[in-house]
Formats: sequence, C-alpha cells, structure tokens
Amino acid sequence: MIQLTRRATFSASHYYWNPAWTEAENFAVFGKCANRSGHGHNYTLEVGVAGEVDPVTGFVVDLKWLKDVIEREVIEVYDHRHLNLEVPEFAHVIPTTENIAVAIWNRLKPIVAQSGASHLTTIRVYETPEIFAEYRGE
Amino acid sequence: MIQLTRRATFSASHYYWNPAWTEAENFAVFGKCANRSGHGHNYTLEVGVAGEVDPVTGFVVDLKWLKDVIEREVIEVYDHRHLNLEVPEFAHVIPTTENIAVAIWNRLKPIVAQSGASHLTTIRVYETPEIFAEYRGE
Amino acid sequence: MIQLTRRATFSASHYYWNPAWTEAENFAVFGKCANRSGHGHNYTLEVGVAGEVDPVTGFVVDLKWLKDVIEREVIEVYDHRHLNLEVPEFAHVIPTTENIAVAIWNRLKPIVAQSGASHLTTIRVYETPEIFAEYRGE
Amino acid sequence: MIQLTRRATFSASHYYWNPAWTEAENFAVFGKCANRSGHGHNYTLEVGVAGEVDPVTGFVVDLKWLKDVIEREVIEVYDHRHLNLEVPEFAHVIPTTENIAVAIWNRLKPIVAQSGASHLTTIRVYETPEIFAEYRGE
Amino acid sequence: MIQLTRRATFSASHYYWNPAWTEAENFAVFGKCANRSGHGHNYTLEVGVAGEVDPVTGFVVDLKWLKDVIEREVIEVYDHRHLNLEVPEFAHVIPTTENIAVAIWNRLKPIVAQSGASHLTTIRVYETPEIFAEYRGE
Amino acid sequence: MIQLTRRATFSASHYYWNPAWTEAENFAVFGKCANRSGHGHNYTLEVGVAGEVDPVTGFVVDLKWLKDVIEREVIEVYDHRHLNLEVPEFAHVIPTTENIAVAIWNRLKPIVAQSGASHLTTIRVYETPEIFAEYRGE
Repeated sequence: MIQLTRRATFSASHYYWNPAWTEAENFAVFGKCANRSGHGHNYTLEVGVAGEVDPVTGFVVDLKWLKDVIEREVIEVYDHRHLNLEVPEFAHVIPTTENIAVAIWNRLKPIVAQSGASHLTTIRVYETPEIFAEYRGE
Repeated sequence: MIQLTRRATFSASHYYWNPAWTEAENFAVFGKCANRSGHGHNYTLEVGVAGEVDPVTGFVVDLKWLKDVIEREVIEVYDHRHLNLEVPEFAHVIPTTENIAVAIWNRLKPIVAQSGASHLTTIRVYETPEIFAEYRGE
Repeated sequence: MIQLTRRATFSASHYYWNPAWTEAENFAVFGKCANRSGHGHNYTLEVGVAGEVDPVTGFVVDLKWLKDVIEREVIEVYDHRHLNLEVPEFAHVIPTTENIAVAIWNRLKPIVAQSGASHLTTIRVYETPEIFAEYRGE
Repeated sequence: MIQLTRRATFSASHYYWNPAWTEAENFAVFGKCANRSGHGHNYTLEVGVAGEVDPVTGFVVDLKWLKDVIEREVIEVYDHRHLNLEVPEFAHVIPTTENIAVAIWNRLKPIVAQSGASHLTTIRVYETPEIFAEYRGE
Repeated sequence: MIQLTRRATFSASHYYWNPAWTEAENFAVFGKCANRSGHGHNYTLEVGVAGEVDPVTGFVVDLKWLKDVIEREVIEVYDHRHLNLEVPEFAHVIPTTENIAVAIWNRLKPIVAQSGASHLTTIRVYETPEIFAEYRGE
Repeated sequence: MIQLTRRATFSASHYYWNPAWTEAENFAVFGKCANRSGHGHNYTLEVGVAGEVDPVTGFVVDLKWLKDVIEREVIEVYDHRHLNLEVPEFAHVIPTTENIAVAIWNRLKPIVAQSGASHLTTIRVYETPEIFAEYRGE
C-alpha cells in the first residue's frame, strides 16, 4: 500500500456569512471575512490516493487520469469563481477551508473509487501557505 | 548604496472588465478573468528601498517603520477587499498585476521619501507564484 | 472529523550541551551545535487541531483565537530569545527540535482542550526546511 | 514517541518502459515519459524516523548519522544517475515515484533499525513539487 | 515602463561533455555531470517582458499569449527531452544553465518583439532552487 | 555577459546593540533585537557572478569552485556562530542584514576576481523569507 499525492491550484473569491445572523453578529464572528464584496485566495489542493503498486505499470493510479479528474471535477468548477455565488455546494454552506476540503472529498471520492485499484485517502486544502485543512473521510 | 526589501501579503478579489466593451469583447480579451462575480488571489508584495547604511544603526531604513507604512498604506486598504469595488484607484483602472504595482508605487513613493536617507526603488507584486509585475518608476 | 493546521514562525538562538559531559564529549556528540556562544534558526511551527465542523460557523476552531493562543503561549516566549538561557522549559532540557516540539505540545494541549469542540493533534517544528520533528502526544 | 524527518535531494534521469509491450503500447500508457532518450527531475526525499527522545542527548536519532546514511545509501547511488540504466533495483522495475519510494524504504529500513532506539516510519519522494509518493511499509 | 514575468517548468535530461577532450579530462572538469547516461532536473524558467501598460487592457503583454508562446517555443521542445540528444541547439553546445538561458532568449526574443508594445528583457533559468542563470541580451 | 547565481545557507546568532547608547536607547531603536542573549536565523545567501560564457566549458564560472569558495570564506566562518561575538568584521559593526551583505561582498569580491573571466556582481542575504538585503558594490 502506497500513497500518491497530486497538487493543483485554483484562484477563487468567497466571504463568510451566516444569513441567520445580523450584520453585527457576522462581523463579530468572521471579522473582515464577512465583507460581502468578497475577497480571494490562491488555493492549493493536494489529493492523496492509496493502493497497491500495479507491477505492470509501476503505478498506484494513472496520474494523467487523476489530473484530468481533478481538472474536470474541481478546477473547472472552482477556479476563477466566487465560491458562495457560483459553486452549488456553497449556496447554503459557508466556504471555509474546512468545508471546501469536505466538498472536494465528496466530489472526488466516488470517481477515484471507479479507478479500481486505488481509493481516495486525503484531501488537503491550503487557503494560504499558513493555513490548511485536511479531511480523510473519518 | 544597498537595497533592502520587505515582503508582505494580502488576499483580495478582482475582475478584469472594460466598460467601453460589450460582454463578448470582455470575455474575448480577458477570458475567465471577466467573470463579474470576481475571483481572488493571495498577493505577495515586495517593497525595495535603497540608501546608504547608517553607521550608527546599521540600517538603510528602519524595517519596523517600513512594515508599519506598508501595513497602513497598502494592507489595510487592499487586504480582504474587492479591488474593483472598494479600492479607489481601481474605480476606473483595471486591477491587473501591472496596475496594482504602479498603484502601490504611487502610494509608497512619497512616504518612503520622507524617511530621509532612503528612497523607494522597486515594487514587485506576485499574483501567483507564477506571475509577477515589477515597477521601478521609470 | 477534520484537521485544521496553522503555521507560525519564530527566530531563536540555542546550543546543545549536556552539563554532565566534558567539553570534548559535548563536541564529539553535538559537533558545532555545542558552541556555547549559540547559533540560531528561523523555526516554523505547525499546530494541528481536529474536531467536527461547527455547522453554524463552518469552523473546526476559530483561527483568530488559535492564532492569538499561539502568539501568546509560544511566539511571545520563544521569539527573539535564547532558548537555553531564557525559556524555562529548556533550563535543564536540551532544546533539540524534538524537545521543542514536545514543549510546545505541553504548552498548547490544555489550552486547545478548553476550546470545547476541538483538540490538539499535531505539533510539527521545522528547524530548517530540511529538518522537522512531529509530535502527536503518543 | 516522536518523528524526526530529514530532507535530501538528488537529480536523476529515467524513463517509463515496459519491455513486454510494443512501442505504441508504451506511449499509449506512459505518454512522453516513454521517450527512451530519458528525461529527469530534481527529486526531494523525506526520510521519517520515530522513537523515544533520548533524555541524555535530546535526540530521537543522531541527525548527522542519518544524513550520512542517506548520503551513502541513496544519494551516492541515485544522484546524477540514470535510474533505469545505472541503479540495480530499476533494472527490471519501472522507476515511477511509487517504486522509487519503495526502493529507498528497502535500502534504509534495515540500516535505521540498527540504530537501536529508532525505526524508519516514512519515505516520501517528490518527483516535482506537484507530485509525491509516500510509503510507510504497510 | 513595467516588467511582467511569467514562470514555467520543464523536466529534462542532459550531460556535460566536450568531444575534444578525453574521458578523463571531461570527468576532471565536469565531475559527475560528465556521466554519459545522463541525469536530469526540474528546470524553472522565468520570462521577463517589459513595456508600457496599455490603458485599454491594463496589460504590458497578454499573459495568455505569452504562456502559449512559452509552451510552443520552449516547453514542447525541451520538456521530457534529453537536451543533448534531442534539442537541436545543443547538438554542439553543452547544455549548461548558462547556455540554456541564452538558447531560450534566442528562441523567444524575435517572437516577443512581434507582440508590438513589449520586448523581452530577462531569461532566468533555475537548474535547482540553488543555481540559476540570468541572461539579459547584453 | 550572463549572470550565474548560487545559493547557500547558514544558521547564526546575533543581536543589535550600539555601545554608545544606554540600554533604554538600544531597546527604543532595536526593539527585541537588542536582547543581549541573542537570537538567530537561517540565513540564505545568493552570490551572483557575471562574465562571458566560456565556449569550451559552457561555464561563466566553475560552480564547484564557487561553491568551495563560498563554503570556505563564508559558511565556515558564519555558520553555527554568534556573529557579534565570533566573526571579526562584526566586533564593532552591528550585524544587520545590510552589513552582513556588505561584509560577504568584501570577503568574496577579491577572490572571485582571481577566477579570471568572471566578477562578483550581487550579494543578496535573506534574514527570513520576508526580509533581504542586496548589495552590488555601488
């Protein structure tokens, strides 16, 4: 069993806002992240997949296939988008780094499972180099 | 003469849009950057200042003072903001990396000049680790 | 259950010295790290906290709170200090990367536990980009 | 129990080729990696070792010893080499990132075990900053 | 006048060999780089272009166009290739970092000149993060 | 004319202190850097050398020679040292990043000049990734 990880990046806008709260409550909890004009980040995504090494190819997973999956399922949907306004899973869920990691897990888990030999083990999302969330489906 | 450079970061949203053009023209030139919902980046700013080393302090410039100037003049205005909608110099100027570098130069040039011995020489702005603009006031 | 990690940095001096040994023994084991004038590093600290995502905020932990805790409990005590001479836990413990990681764990574990929903899972300390210690309280 | 990790780098050539396949099959599966002239990478290796902290030295493992082991067992054999043509374990095994991680594990596992208190826990190999394999002997 | 820089990467093999010398002379001067089996690197390329900011677009140069030029003129020719054996400009020129920088300058200079407003100012090539060559056509 | 740059690192302690001032004056100007117990950094040094490419070797300068020069003249003197107490040029000069850059210039300038074809053009010293000084002998 070996884990292979592929990194990708996307640039997106977001804000933190709980519609059940007043504006004052939102700013008290979320600070400047509550600014409704939005702000943005260069997110870095790490997708970890584990399995046995195929003795014929030397691969746990075909990285070209994995790159295309990440591109189609995540980058095309998130990159150069406003997460709150344009990405369906954040219509009613605040796009914190934690929730972005869970959402990407939910997008990729069933597709990686179709690859046969390998399975998704880790989604790590960096909002900045100083902050990251990691979800392992547990 | 020696140059001292200090790095800072800010996270902001923006879009590229020329109001004199149709939507189709904007998307033809700017691609997905023309998305009016906005997208964002973790910008990295490098501020270069040059001068003689003061033999009493060993400093070209007091880095604590320079950090406070960058914080007050740039970070407080740009960080967690939508550049097009909330930062005055981009009300009618497209916030490309080039224009952001020039705008920060214009903000910092007169203030660094007040420090006496040193002067602003370089503004470098990274939109991502792959793209940066550098302005030297020439 | 999701893990959120926040990075911080501090610059400090230290040396490696076992007072039960002769000078020759110290240099034999610790090499140039035994130099009693001290040397120093830019340490990078990663603090990992895990818990359930709060559906109201989207947070595992309030990162502003966590940043303040790290600042108050670690950075103010370690940054711009000589670890052997000025930080109490290293008065009789050699400040190796391993021992620094354990000491920071001991400082942060009870405080993160007070946050309620989340708990400390990982302390990673980089002495340089080439060397790091990781402690998980096990 | 604490984990200590040391990073090292080597620059090497390789190609991906299964001799049981035709040229067309190799290019269909491996793409441009099947180019028999070879291409290369700056590999980054992370070697993770775990154990109790020795109260006399503050060490899990003597990093100078570990550096020498990595240098002798891996860097001298892999660096500035063509992995397929010059490194024995890849004479009949395709040097994918996965297989390189396993090979380095096999080289280092018994030697770290001789150190007494600590044991090898993790081999991570970056082919580029975007792709890495991690093997834990499981 | 402002400079805009775009980064790109390619992975390639090479060796250092002067055919006018004996094997012993080649190893005396080039060390392990003279290994004819080849070794390789992840090269990082920075292409700097300068000009006036177009007030209509906010651009010095259309970065999408520049990316396509770099991809077509450099990456497709160099990436996953053996520089000595497969890239024409290195048939009789040793592919040192210095010579690679000059060769990329010669490839890109006339094409960037066709863009009209901007011109090529800098080619920087990193062989590793520790070594880079910079050519400015002077 | 092409520039070749080589990076190196050293870890050292220092403090900022002007003996002509009172303790209160030193802390007023230098803040926590005035702590006489010292603190430290992982410094990164970039040494830039320029010249014509030798058509026989493809080199501006023999990087192995340059590495040995940097090792002997800078790293052996500065690494794992307290700059104020152990490095002669800082006995009466405050080891700010600016002064360290000038001191390394003065150490390397005459030696690189002896190499014949190339000359020293740039010394850049990073105290942290956020702060660097650059000296070009002007």
